[in-house]
Amino acid sequence: NYSEKVMDHFTNPRNVGEIEDASGCGTVGNAVCGDIMRVYLDIDENNVIQDAKFKTFGCGAAIATSSMATVLVKGKTVQEALEVTNKAVMEALDGLPPVKVHCSLLAEEAIHAALWDYAEKN
Amino acid sequence: NYSEKVMDHFTNPRNVGEIEDASGCGTVGNAVCGDIMRVYLDIDENNVIQDAKFKTFGCGAAIATSSMATVLVKGKTVQEALEVTNKAVMEALDGLPPVKVHCSLLAEEAIHAALWDYAEKN
Ligand code: FES
Repeated sequence: NYSEKVMDHFTNPRNVGEIEDASGCGTVGNAVCGDIMRVYLDIDENNVIQDAKFKTFGCGAAIATSSMATVLVKGKTVQEALEVTNKAVMEALDGLPPVKVHCSLLAEEAIHAALWDYAEKN
Repeated sequence: NYSEKVMDHFTNPRNVGEIEDASGCGTVGNAVCGDIMRVYLDIDENNVIQDAKFKTFGCGAAIATSSMATVLVKGKTVQEALEVTNKAVMEALDGLPPVKVHCSLLAEEAIHAALWDYAEKN
């Protein structure tokens, strides 16, 4: 009951890893299942996201949404990236089962936390 | 807050995969988080588990406990394997945070389901 795109981003996740000296880094926890997610962003002097990486202890849905979310925010400005909601990420993945919607929030919250970390530093 | 053994079995899981024409196969779902787990067992004519593999969409804790559980049941008889509880698996992993205990049940339940599948077929 998972879409082809979810299975693709789960079995072959994009942008897994860390960025050393990241412009912004955000770590969030999931109250429902106890999982954690960390997102690293590399942002240039024009506020454009040049690179995005993530690490998670979360489930397949968390991996697939983080993979797609990092793909979507790359090349966007900080302002544009703030508008990439978990809804947009789920649409790009052709949907998620209702029970897994909370997992998709991890990616959105971690990206927001990383953007705030960047804003605070600049 | 995860033990070294949990991180080891999460980042380098043992026995991920499928067994074609398995002696027993069990699939279970987790009511807490909606994740799924499938375990395949290859059992010889003396009721000894020769091979065990798993696939899951679950989180890091589910991956680590399934990895350890499949390691523990290999070489055991069906009767011995039924006594490998999630508690024993968690002990072998030097513990899990309380919020992730439900994840460790997936491995135990899937192994039991695979053992029942084998029993039904024989
Ligand atoms: S949160 Fe679903 S298996 Fe761990």
